[in-house]
Amino acid sequence: MAAATAPAPLYVQIAEGIVSQIENGTLRVGEKAPSIRRLSKQKRVSISTALQSYLWLESRGHLEARPKSGFFVRRPFSSLIPEPRVEMPRTAPHIPGHREILSTLVASARDPDCVPFAGGCMSRELFPNRPMNLIVRRIVNNHPLHSAYYEFPPGLESLRRQLARRSPDLGCSFTADEVLITGGTLEAVNLSLRAVARPGDVIAVESPTYFGVLGAAAALGMKIVEIPTHPQEGMDLDRLESAIRKHRVKACVVMSNCQNPLGYVLSDQRKKDLADLAARRNIAVIEDDVYGDLAFRTSRPRTVKSYDRKGLVLLCSSFSKTLPPGYRIGWMAPGRFQAEVEHLRFLSTVSSATLSQLAIAEFLASGGYDRHLRRLRAELASRVENVRQAVARYFPEGTRISRPAGGLLLWIEMPPKTDALELYRRALAERIAILPGKIFSPSNRFRHHIRINCGQSWGEKQERALVRLGRICEAVAAG
Amino acid sequence: MAAATAPAPLYVQIAEGIVSQIENGTLRVGEKAPSIRRLSKQKRVSISTALQSYLWLESRGHLEARPKSGFFVRRPFSSLIPEPRVEMPRTAPHIPGHREILSTLVASARDPDCVPFAGGCMSRELFPNRPMNLIVRRIVNNHPLHSAYYEFPPGLESLRRQLARRSPDLGCSFTADEVLITGGTLEAVNLSLRAVARPGDVIAVESPTYFGVLGAAAALGMKIVEIPTHPQEGMDLDRLESAIRKHRVKACVVMSNCQNPLGYVLSDQRKKDLADLAARRNIAVIEDDVYGDLAFRTSRPRTVKSYDRKGLVLLCSSFSKTLPPGYRIGWMAPGRFQAEVEHLRFLSTVSSATLSQLAIAEFLASGGYDRHLRRLRAELASRVENVRQAVARYFPEGTRISRPAGGLLLWIEMPPKTDALELYRRALAERIAILPGKIFSPSNRFRHHIRINCGQSWGEKQERALVRLGRICEAVAAG
Repeated sequence: MAAATAPAPLYVQIAEGIVSQIENGTLRVGEKAPSIRRLSKQKRVSISTALQSYLWLESRGHLEARPKSGFFVRRPFSSLIPEPRVEMPRTAPHIPGHREILSTLVASARDPDCVPFAGGCMSRELFPNRPMNLIVRRIVNNHPLHSAYYEFPPGLESLRRQLARRSPDLGCSFTADEVLITGGTLEAVNLSLRAVARPGDVIAVESPTYFGVLGAAAALGMKIVEIPTHPQEGMDLDRLESAIRKHRVKACVVMSNCQNPLGYVLSDQRKKDLADLAARRNIAVIEDDVYGDLAFRTSRPRTVKSYDRKGLVLLCSSFSKTLPPGYRIGWMAPGRFQAEVEHLRFLSTVSSATLSQLAIAEFLASGGYDRHLRRLRAELASRVENVRQAVARYFPEGTRISRPAGGLLLWIEMPPKTDALELYRRALAERIAILPGKIFSPSNRFRHHIRINCGQSWGEKQERALVRLGRICEAVAAG
Repeated sequence: MAAATAPAPLYVQIAEGIVSQIENGTLRVGEKAPSIRRLSKQKRVSISTALQSYLWLESRGHLEARPKSGFFVRRPFSSLIPEPRVEMPRTAPHIPGHREILSTLVASARDPDCVPFAGGCMSRELFPNRPMNLIVRRIVNNHPLHSAYYEFPPGLESLRRQLARRSPDLGCSFTADEVLITGGTLEAVNLSLRAVARPGDVIAVESPTYFGVLGAAAALGMKIVEIPTHPQEGMDLDRLESAIRKHRVKACVVMSNCQNPLGYVLSDQRKKDLADLAARRNIAVIEDDVYGDLAFRTSRPRTVKSYDRKGLVLLCSSFSKTLPPGYRIGWMAPGRFQAEVEHLRFLSTVSSATLSQLAIAEFLASGGYDRHLRRLRAELASRVENVRQAVARYFPEGTRISRPAGGLLLWIEMPPKTDALELYRRALAERIAILPGKIFSPSNRFRHHIRINCGQSWGEKQERALVRLGRICEAVAAG
């Protein structure tokens, strides 16, 4: 695993200069790149270094070598592949139902022979298993009665204190008393929905958005209105405001950091605009920040919650994307809904496993979590880029790929005639698990989109699977 | 801790014979018991053994020694104290709201100086902390990646298999595939309610019943109808049937074993009658069996589920009353609602802590759980009896006490003019936490009842607290 800050070798620096030239239009698709000899002179490097630069560019799909002619700028070209279009959904309330696909997701996660592009997990060796096991052993040895009590809501105080200490990283300043421990982000989102809305009420969501949120809201009898969502700028706030007027929306659910599935991180201005709109319209914002610690840039992005002046934002997150998910520890800072949320927690699941809470509190306190995050972010950035490149190489022309600012998910829009559900089924028959776009919407949209998980270590098996996916794509599009 | 099956010493056997005479009316309150000399002749034992018998009877409140006169049958006499009356509630749907008292319950559980008669926990030394810690250490050493995955619904297979193996003890024969792991019994009950009913639907409950169930149903927007409940024979099935007709009840929630708060274990015939009624009327039965492993008799009582022929019974239980509750592992056998319940679990809390599941599965497989249960049941029977005796001694005349067949809870009906809410408040001011009866009903019933937890080890502190409670009782009744 390379550190994120290590300087790139000389040949990579030169290659990146050429990528910039391509991006700013100095070099265009189909044009010939300078000869190797010329490049070596321009950059004052050896022929061998210049050649290395071109081979690097070729391996990443920026250039192609043409026999006896030299290197040419090529397409499809992953960094030029357009991001998915803004989709304009109808804004009528809908109830989703995607049970069959979710069952397959669960079943495929249990199948060791399946290529796991479907779920939201990363490969197990990325987790800090060793230091956390040391901590568990220490707790069990030193505090044999660790689990002899219920950790009633709001949950273990030492863990809540650690979360309060980290809150400035998120642009917030909540105290330990303003935090509630949950059994994961989705439980926090469920508690939030129940605290701010009743069955029959309307909830606004991004489109596309995480299927778990859609399913949770529908299972609670709530109605869903999809707000058009830009792949970089997020929810269209004008459309959100008009939906609030039209449907008396009670709350909106947003992922402002590393959105699932689009991968964007909203600008601070957009976050502030959303918080202001919510305050003006007096609606709750359920902010799902589960991937927030996995943004690729060096500083941790702030949250919509950080602009919340009226306690209307319920910030929800967990450690399930950064630490072993089997610990099952999430948390929330529910603002003015704290008492209601604690009560609902008491009446639904009471508390989370104490040993998990103790171990994570200790890992946070030790500084181990921050060290782990630095390595993890760099590694995921590289894994996501590997998959992007391969998709660009192997998927049909006309494919658009998201450009994630963090997390481990790619959103892929295939040419319109590609039936993603059919692709999903055929791929599953070959034991390649992906998620079809339709489950990211309650209204059967995103029919030629898929989501792919890049959290597995990159290797031949993954690449072969993407080659196959590309071919199945073509077969499906051909009918 | 005495084994449940050890034969009692001779003097206890003799004393128990006298208790029988009192119970069958051969000896009446106020009458003189045979002299010690006479008893020694009758039973062919030494004077010293006869004296021991009478001291035992005196210490348990059956006899009182009157100076120069001998031993007399006394009252109030705990085993003669009548059990609480059958209450006849109105059968209109109600929505409960007991948030304030539940908050106090949580707060008092955190206060080490508080006498914890309120919660449903037992003292920590009763749990098998050592063997379970050994198991956790072994898992962490041998399987360092133990928590690197989500244990998606239905949960850890090895634990489900252990539960399936135990199902004949409950009179059932479900397979591992018919079990779902949850984060405790209350989560299982919540999932059950959501699977069988919608907001606005009517649920029938015992009266009194566990406040958590009332709160959960109300928080889900369901309506509650209370069915009159006999302290030994449970729900009045005729009244249940007429409520089903009148209110279109979707499901009833019952605790057939060690009911909370009444403590009864239903006879097999009553269990069968309930299962038959549910089948005839096509309603679901949510059977909360959380205390089922804690019945005092030697054989584990069977369940309503064991008479279920149509898959209408959702059996819910957990290890939170027998193993350290911080592990947070419950389970359910939801019959025909399996798929719906799994789906709801996936959309609400996803899964339970893996380490907890692994540790409990291993403890069950090792036989340690059964050994632990044998000791635990005997110990709890003795603790409950100690508290019963003390309540009989220190509470005002006219007090009625439940006669639990298992578990660790006592239900106490004080004379009608005793305001239990006021008793609860004054006791809490003296750091004695009890639960007022009203939270066991959605309709403000049980106003002169309280529930007391007997799970703490019996000692001076507990006895002093009961003396105080008795005095506060009298003060409250006096106005």
